[in-house]
Amino acid sequence: MKENIYLVGAGLTRFGEWWDKSLRQLIDEAIGSAIRSSNIDAREIDLVIVANMLAEITNNQATLGSLTSSLLPGRPAAMRVEAACGSGAVALHTATAFLESGRARTVLVVGAEKMTDVSNDIVSQALMGAADAELDLPSGLTFPGIFGLIASRYMYEFGLTREELSIVSAVHHRNAMQNPFAQFRVELTPEAVSKSTLVSDPLRLLDCSPISDGAAACILSTKHKSALKLVASQIASDTPSITQRATITSFPATREAFTKALGEASLERKDILVAETHDCFSIAAIINMEDLGFAERGEGVRVYKDLYEKRAPLFVNMGGGLKACGHPVAATGIKQLIDAGKHLTSAKARFGVTHNFGGAGTTCGIHILENTAV
Amino acid sequence: MKENIYLVGAGLTRFGEWWDKSLRQLIDEAIGSAIRSSNIDAREIDLVIVANMLAEITNNQATLGSLTSSLLPGRPAAMRVEAACGSGAVALHTATAFLESGRARTVLVVGAEKMTDVSNDIVSQALMGAADAELDLPSGLTFPGIFGLIASRYMYEFGLTREELSIVSAVHHRNAMQNPFAQFRVELTPEAVSKSTLVSDPLRLLDCSPISDGAAACILSTKHKSALKLVASQIASDTPSITQRATITSFPATREAFTKALGEASLERKDILVAETHDCFSIAAIINMEDLGFAERGEGVRVYKDLYEKRAPLFVNMGGGLKACGHPVAATGIKQLIDAGKHLTSAKARFGVTHNFGGAGTTCGIHILENTAV
Repeated sequence: MKENIYLVGAGLTRFGEWWDKSLRQLIDEAIGSAIRSSNIDAREIDLVIVANMLAEITNNQATLGSLTSSLLPGRPAAMRVEAACGSGAVALHTATAFLESGRARTVLVVGAEKMTDVSNDIVSQALMGAADAELDLPSGLTFPGIFGLIASRYMYEFGLTREELSIVSAVHHRNAMQNPFAQFRVELTPEAVSKSTLVSDPLRLLDCSPISDGAAACILSTKHKSALKLVASQIASDTPSITQRATITSFPATREAFTKALGEASLERKDILVAETHDCFSIAAIINMEDLGFAERGEGVRVYKDLYEKRAPLFVNMGGGLKACGHPVAATGIKQLIDAGKHLTSAKARFGVTHNFGGAGTTCGIHILENTAV
Repeated sequence: MKENIYLVGAGLTRFGEWWDKSLRQLIDEAIGSAIRSSNIDAREIDLVIVANMLAEITNNQATLGSLTSSLLPGRPAAMRVEAACGSGAVALHTATAFLESGRARTVLVVGAEKMTDVSNDIVSQALMGAADAELDLPSGLTFPGIFGLIASRYMYEFGLTREELSIVSAVHHRNAMQNPFAQFRVELTPEAVSKSTLVSDPLRLLDCSPISDGAAACILSTKHKSALKLVASQIASDTPSITQRATITSFPATREAFTKALGEASLERKDILVAETHDCFSIAAIINMEDLGFAERGEGVRVYKDLYEKRAPLFVNMGGGLKACGHPVAATGIKQLIDAGKHLTSAKARFGVTHNFGGAGTTCGIHILENTAV
C-alpha cells in the first residue's frame, strides 16, 4: 500500500425486507451512522463511491453516486461502481486507488441494494446479469441453477454428502444470533437444512442466501486514523460464463486476488485469523475455504465441521455470512469489511480478510485489514 | 497530475443503430481497434474500466468489466463505473486515479451502450434513472421533458429565440459530415431544425441527441508515451433532481469541475482551443458554452452563431457532438477524449477540453488533453 489507509467510520442498516424504507432512506441511514461513528465532519468527505448492482431495475435509479452525494453537505464528487455481487469490494478497491493517488483523503464508500421492491422473477432475472447474457441466460439458468450445477459437480468430484453440505448454513445461522444487523437470527440444525424445500438440486432453500434490502457504509481515510488499517486491496477477473471455465469447482479469481493480497501485505495464510467470505450458496462457502488456502481441494467442508464443533482456529463469517446476515448484493462487500474490523477487535486478532465475489467467482475482491491495537 | 498519463490508443465503432451487432461485439470492435492503434501488446493492459449506464436493462448484462476483460488475453482486473451519461468521463477519472496510485500502468477504458435492442419506451424510462426516481419519475417527466423545461426557462430569462436555438444542431450536423464514425452525416439548415416535429416544447426532434448503439475505447498509460498527454481530470456532483437546484439554466457541476481542471493544469480558459461538450439537447450546448466560460451567462448562442459563420476562435464538437455523432450514453465521454486528441492533432492546437455530464449536469467530468507535438 502506497499510503496508510484507515477504516475510520462504519455504518449499517439491519439487512432484511424493508417495505417501509426506500433505497435513499437505507443509504441515508447507513451513511449517517458511519459519519457519527467516525467523529469526522461530513464536509471532510471528498469522494463518494457507491456500490450497487440492481437499482436501475429495482428502483429506476441510476447515478447513485450523485444521489448519495446530494445527501451530504458540500456535495462531494461521486460515482457508482458495479461488479455484480462483488461491487462492494470493487468500490473499496477504487477508494484505495483514489486515496493512494492523493486525489482524495477521506472517502465514503457505500454499498446499497433494495431488492424487495420488485417480484422475485424480476430480481432473479436481474441477478442473472452477473452471468453472461448471451451464453448463459438463454439456457434458462438462474444463479441457484448455476450453483446447483457447481454443487453437483463438486459432490461428484470430491464425494461431499448432502449432510455435510448442510453444516455450512447451520454454522452461519448460529453466528448470526449475535449480530443485531442480521436478517435471520434463528438457529438451524443441519437436518433442517437438508429437509428444506428443494430449489436447484442438490441445493435446498436453506443453502441459499436470501433476497435482502440493506446498506453498508464505511469511511476510509489517509488523513484520519484508527486502529484498523487496510494492508491489502486486490481484485481479479474471470469469465462471466461458467461454460468458459476449465473447472467449476474452484474459482481462480479468488486464488489470484488472495495471493496478490497476501503479497501486498507481506503475509502468509496462517497470519489470517478472521475471514469474511462470499457464501452466496453453501457450496460456495466450502469452495472459498479451499480457494483461500484454508483447506486442500475437496476438503473445504472440514473447516466447517471444525467451525460447527467450535474447534477451528479461524473466525469465519462471524456475523452470519451472506446466508444468515442477508445479501443486499452490493452492500455485502462493504459489510464484510465492517464485520472483519468488528471481529478483529473483539477477538483481539491482528489480521482479517474479506472475500467478496460477483457472479460465480467472476470478479473477486480481497481486502486485508490489520488491527494495529494488537 | 501526479504522473504523466498518455493517450496511447483509441478505437471507435461508428455510432448508429446496429441491429446486427451485440453489445459484446461493439465492445470487441472498439477495443480491438484501440489495441491495434496503440502498438501495445494487449497483455500489457493491467486494468479494464468499462463505462456503461443501461446494459442491465437493455441487455440483461451487468458485470461488463469482467465481460470485457474476458475478451483480452490474461483477463486483467476489471470493473464498471456508472454516472449516467457522464459514465465515460468518470471512467477516465477512475483510470487516472489508478494510474497515479501506481496500481496500474496501462488501463483500457471502454464506454459502450446498446440502446436499440429495446423499445423507445423502455429506453426512455431507463434514461430517467439519471434523474431522481422519487422526486422526478412520478411526475411523468422524461429527459426531453426536463431539457424542455430548461429551454423554456432559459428563453424566458435570456430572450433566446427558437431560430437562434436551431443554429446549434446545424453546426453539429455540418461538423459530422467529416466524421466517419458519426451516426448522422447529413447537413441541416436551422430552418429544418425549427420545423421538425415538436418533442417537448420548445424542443423539437432535431434539438435532441439520438438513441444510439456504439462503443469507444482508449488506452491510457504511464508506461507508454504518445504526443497526447492528459493534464487534468476532475469530476463534480450535483443533485439528480432539478427540483432541488437554485437555477436550471446553469450547471454548477460543470463550473466546479472545469475550474478545478484549469487549476490542475495551470491553464486559463483562453489556452483552450478545442472543446468537446455534452450537447445532449441543443439548449445544453448553449448553457455549456457559458458554464465553461466561453460566453457570459445568456450569451452562449453567440459562440454558436460564430461557429455557424466560421468566425469562432474555438473548435467545438468537431465530430458532430452528441446530436450528430450520436449518443450511446456511456461511450460519449470516451469518444470525446478520442475526438479531442484527433482535432488537437489536425488543428495543431495545444490544449483541448472534454466536458461530459450525466443527467441534467448531475455529474460532470472534465478532462484536458495536451498535444505535446505543438
